Amino acid sequence: MSQSPTLQDLYRAITPDLAGVESEIVGALHSETPEIAEMAACASGHGGKRMRPAMVLLVARAAGAAVPAHTRLAAVVEMIHLATLVHDDVIDDADLRRKRRTVKARWNRHDAVLLGDIIFARAIRLLASMSDERSMVTLTSALSTVCEGEILQNRRSHDPTLSEATYYRIIDAKTAELYARGCELAAWLANCDQGKVGAFGVFGRELGLAFQITDDVLDLVGDESEVGKSLGTDLVGGKMTLPLILLRQRLEDQPRGTFDRVITEGVVNEDDVFAIGDLLRRHQVLDDALTRARDHVNAGLSAVRAAVDDDAYAPLDALGGFVLSRTL
Amino acid sequence: MSQSPTLQDLYRAITPDLAGVESEIVGALHSETPEIAEMAACASGHGGKRMRPAMVLLVARAAGAAVPAHTRLAAVVEMIHLATLVHDDVIDDADLRRKRRTVKARWNRHDAVLLGDIIFARAIRLLASMSDERSMVTLTSALSTVCEGEILQNRRSHDPTLSEATYYRIIDAKTAELYARGCELAAWLANCDQGKVGAFGVFGRELGLAFQITDDVLDLVGDESEVGKSLGTDLVGGKMTLPLILLRQRLEDQPRGTFDRVITEGVVNEDDVFAIGDLLRRHQVLDDALTRARDHVNAGLSAVRAAVDDDAYAPLDALGGFVLSRTL
Repeated sequence: MSQSPTLQDLYRAITPDLAGVESEIVGALHSETPEIAEMAACASGHGGKRMRPAMVLLVARAAGAAVPAHTRLAAVVEMIHLATLVHDDVIDDADLRRKRRTVKARWNRHDAVLLGDIIFARAIRLLASMSDERSMVTLTSALSTVCEGEILQNRRSHDPTLSEATYYRIIDAKTAELYARGCELAAWLANCDQGKVGAFGVFGRELGLAFQITDDVLDLVGDESEVGKSLGTDLVGGKMTLPLILLRQRLEDQPRGTFDRVITEGVVNEDDVFAIGDLLRRHQVLDDALTRARDHVNAGLSAVRAAVDDDAYAPLDALGGFVLSRTL
Repeated sequence: MSQSPTLQDLYRAITPDLAGVESEIVGALHSETPEIAEMAACASGHGGKRMRPAMVLLVARAAGAAVPAHTRLAAVVEMIHLATLVHDDVIDDADLRRKRRTVKARWNRHDAVLLGDIIFARAIRLLASMSDERSMVTLTSALSTVCEGEILQNRRSHDPTLSEATYYRIIDAKTAELYARGCELAAWLANCDQGKVGAFGVFGRELGLAFQITDDVLDLVGDESEVGKSLGTDLVGGKMTLPLILLRQRLEDQPRGTFDRVITEGVVNEDDVFAIGDLLRRHQVLDDALTRARDHVNAGLSAVRAAVDDDAYAPLDALGGFVLSRTL
């Protein structure tokens, strides 16, 4: 991927479109009630690099025709994501996200539940204004799937025997689905044929899986100042992620006993964190998980390689590189 | 209203349609994951008498033409209501609703937040399948308004000086909006002209206001076995409702001081409950609040009187009577 444009090049090309996405989001979240407007602005600020809108816009260009509807689609996808973040912070009782205080922390969990609902509603209203039935049915289904994935994840937390298959089922639903559907619809709105629409859907899904896996690795290596959240959140919550699943497969009986206790009970002290950290290093599972993420990016790129020309491919390749570079 | 059909007559006439609504809801909430299916069934069981679907179906008949889309509209409106109930129980930390354990109590608040999101998503997907842009835009806006009303209510709790105007703003948004829009769209789907559509919207809004006011009265008089929830929930939560606003207007300085303390701090002991109960009786504010509810029902009936013939009017009149009879 060495000849790909840099992340800066990537974002520079779509800067005007991303500004349009911001305008759509601001407009859709407008409220005459100052407190609701303030809460909505807080939630919107947690979106970070606007990965999902960037993907929708880049796919639109790669698919041959970026139209105004793409800006709106990108805004809807991001708003659905933002609403799930607000609810996630209620569920995880999290005070910080990207080094900023969450809606739940600045106000309270009651208002955060309702604000998440409002953002969902405003997202769907914006979606309705596109008057595109396929987008409507696809994204409302995706929203349901995302939440079903999160329920499945909650119900299987503190289970050290969680299988890779179930892990994939969870991250496919809670993360990759929205990426996949966003990219699929971006191609659809660009008037691609069904083959291309499907190819871009696969591209989005594979990058979404890679994104989640790198996120799960980051949770185990990142420090608070880097990722803006506490180290080992997943570990504390007893959430089995790919690196932890790979680790457990390689453990002998004795350390496995310790490992299982930590996941079952949730980490209770620094010794546990240190012990798991030591096992992760010795068994090199973080690298193996990242290799898996790279495989997903490559699978996504393969799916679209034949569907687009070289000029259109380069930014998609760069985007894949960016998803992986988050782990550096 | 003495010559109106009884509630039994009312429901008998729309029984097949209501069965259709149930089928739509069951279909829309279907899940391959047994736990999610079970949670959804639990949430669906909290809908009680299906007041909102009944109103949509009765308005459809009164407006001259009940079509299949009305069944779907009624299901969507009820599902939006069910989702807000699931989230309300998280917000209020309520274990019982209609004498049955809530989703939050049977599972946990995490799953309840996500299940509410899923029901919203499934409702909107069902709405999208109607392919009616006006219904889509109207109901997604209404969903946002409902949540905004609830945020306003939360942020003004424990404020004994809450004005009647603000109280009306809150209940108009959190309760009457969905009734109003449901009735408005029922008329729209029956091909009524704009005048009739507006009249049915007013009918729905006024009955919604009456419904909420009687609910607020019930909260202060009902006992646990009657309404399936604890006596004086609003009082404990420091929520100023119409009867309490009317009461405070009539209090001398000394009892007003006691009253303000109870609302500000939330009720902490049985003496407080007894003291407020005594004040409510002596100042007869519950009757006055019910008179206000009756005025709203009459305003709603006036709005549609000229728009429909006698046969169509009778069930609407009976529906109004039913909203008020809930207080007996």
